[in-house]
Amino acid sequence: MTAKLKNDLFLRALKGEDVPRPPVWMMRQAGRYLPEFIALRDKYDFFTRCQTPELASEITVQPIRRYGMDAAILFSDILVVPQAMDIAVEMKPGVGPWLPNPVRTPADVDRVVVPDVNDSLGYVLEAIRQTNEKLDGEVPLIGFAGAPWTIFCYCVQGQGSKSFDKAKAFCFTQPEAAHALLRKITETTIAYLKAKVATGVHAVQLFDSWGGMLSPEDYREFSWQYIQQIVDALKPVAPVIVFAKGCWFALDTMSRSGASALGVDWTVSPQVARQLTSGRITLQGNMDPARLLSPPGTIRQMVHEMIRGFGKNRYIVNLGHGILPEVPIEHAGAFIQAVKDYHEG
Amino acid sequence: MTAKLKNDLFLRALKGEDVPRPPVWMMRQAGRYLPEFIALRDKYDFFTRCQTPELASEITVQPIRRYGMDAAILFSDILVVPQAMDIAVEMKPGVGPWLPNPVRTPADVDRVVVPDVNDSLGYVLEAIRQTNEKLDGEVPLIGFAGAPWTIFCYCVQGQGSKSFDKAKAFCFTQPEAAHALLRKITETTIAYLKAKVATGVHAVQLFDSWGGMLSPEDYREFSWQYIQQIVDALKPVAPVIVFAKGCWFALDTMSRSGASALGVDWTVSPQVARQLTSGRITLQGNMDPARLLSPPGTIRQMVHEMIRGFGKNRYIVNLGHGILPEVPIEHAGAFIQAVKDYHEG
Repeated sequence: MTAKLKNDLFLRALKGEDVPRPPVWMMRQAGRYLPEFIALRDKYDFFTRCQTPELASEITVQPIRRYGMDAAILFSDILVVPQAMDIAVEMKPGVGPWLPNPVRTPADVDRVVVPDVNDSLGYVLEAIRQTNEKLDGEVPLIGFAGAPWTIFCYCVQGQGSKSFDKAKAFCFTQPEAAHALLRKITETTIAYLKAKVATGVHAVQLFDSWGGMLSPEDYREFSWQYIQQIVDALKPVAPVIVFAKGCWFALDTMSRSGASALGVDWTVSPQVARQLTSGRITLQGNMDPARLLSPPGTIRQMVHEMIRGFGKNRYIVNLGHGILPEVPIEHAGAFIQAVKDYHEG
Repeated sequence: MTAKLKNDLFLRALKGEDVPRPPVWMMRQAGRYLPEFIALRDKYDFFTRCQTPELASEITVQPIRRYGMDAAILFSDILVVPQAMDIAVEMKPGVGPWLPNPVRTPADVDRVVVPDVNDSLGYVLEAIRQTNEKLDGEVPLIGFAGAPWTIFCYCVQGQGSKSFDKAKAFCFTQPEAAHALLRKITETTIAYLKAKVATGVHAVQLFDSWGGMLSPEDYREFSWQYIQQIVDALKPVAPVIVFAKGCWFALDTMSRSGASALGVDWTVSPQVARQLTSGRITLQGNMDPARLLSPPGTIRQMVHEMIRGFGKNRYIVNLGHGILPEVPIEHAGAFIQAVKDYHEG
């Protein structure tokens, strides 16, 4: 699969090879800032878009057609995993993810299913096949999943939260039940990501959106050990990128995990990110998504400064979190183009 | 004033003096976890509580009566400052702070008033007088204000936000107008905090709740320089504590600012916090507020571990953010008592 890729810059950066310029993609690049995405969103609801391979694959390739990023990321959602585990997930207008039956007791945990992913998430695998047909070897395809802790947060809290107090209370008062749920999520995630790789994604990324809400000690216990299990399981079959937002304190540990790359957010300067990871791993990030609201000339300058900061090798240009819906399409274009125009000296 | 305090542990820790045990207080200690607070909240709305000195002073001393913390913090809100600057602020049920006329243009900035604080915030000063009468020299009283960047976020965004995209867009596209607004907020805040000190608070704390949403470079430009101005202005009259949530990346700079202490959140371990500040300043924090949901025995153990981690000197025990409303009152009590019971060896 990799052999026939026309543009393998992204995979080379993941391997740590020298490259003429760093590859670039943007978290949530298949998303609401694109008029062609909005046209589809107005016709089909959220889960229809995720569960219909024709739509998911079309949405995935939209930004590639418009901008020619160096990697595509499959359009989906981290909450398809709890859904497959028999935990109902809805999208509530104005609220976001809404889980009407949150997991709050050991008995609730017992009822959670570790599914056959080929069956319950077969629609994602079909979307991968259709996406690769559409991409026709142009660029590699990234598959993703939420880190177990982040999925756990939604399963227990039942919705987004500023403090995820109910999720934490479950950990701090019923740690055995909490770990049982985290193990089930981890097992499902490993099977899910392995199936994705077997079907044709070239790399996988784990999103730990809520890891930064834990103390370093609690992070080790309730988040990191499960991410490490996933890295160990996936490493033999595909490069793994770990993006743990707000987890600057764990970058050293993460850099020794066997992951191929680490995502970093914009609170970590390029120099500090290299320092905290002792220069031993490919890094991905990290412009403040709100900085894409700056004038295009400023964006261009900041991108070049960022590449000089991280260095062109062992580096994947990205934002420090998902692109904001209100970013003008020309500004997203300026970000991508600045990377393509980059040359040293 | 200070001379006649019965318990000056808090002020001694701010001065860096050796103490038998560290002082303790909790952010939002005058708040919704207390039944006696809820009884008042059910009778009076938010701004009535803030603006009525009898109520504000009563709420301030409630936790001191129940637990005997080593410092009281005046019950108020950071948004009384924009209110005094002629920017309307409402509390919308289910939404939180709501500013119906957000500042979005240079003309909007021009209309913002730098008020006479003795006039427009006289009710806060009266609350300080009444609180000190009620405290009767038992413990020192802390006055607080929001950092200019955090106040700016609300003034421009118009409400709380996950990304404060509109506030950032204002900075990134109209930097001159943004700085003009930040200067007005800074000027008002300095006058406000000086008036508080003149009226009888023993120390002041600045809350930069949203500083951690900026990159280190943007933090320097849009937040830190204004905090430094406030520290410079207040330092001659009272000890200043700066608490910038999520701003681990600026701890080194902050430790050289002339502030008497720095608040730290729970993503920074005690050891790393000491390292990042080169052991040169009193630190305050930093237990995860959700950890007060743990069993009291665990809380006690964690408090003692935390004190050993920071060391008993140059340290003020606190949470890493405000106490959560659902914390059982016995758990808050266990936190305070564990500090009082601490002894070395």
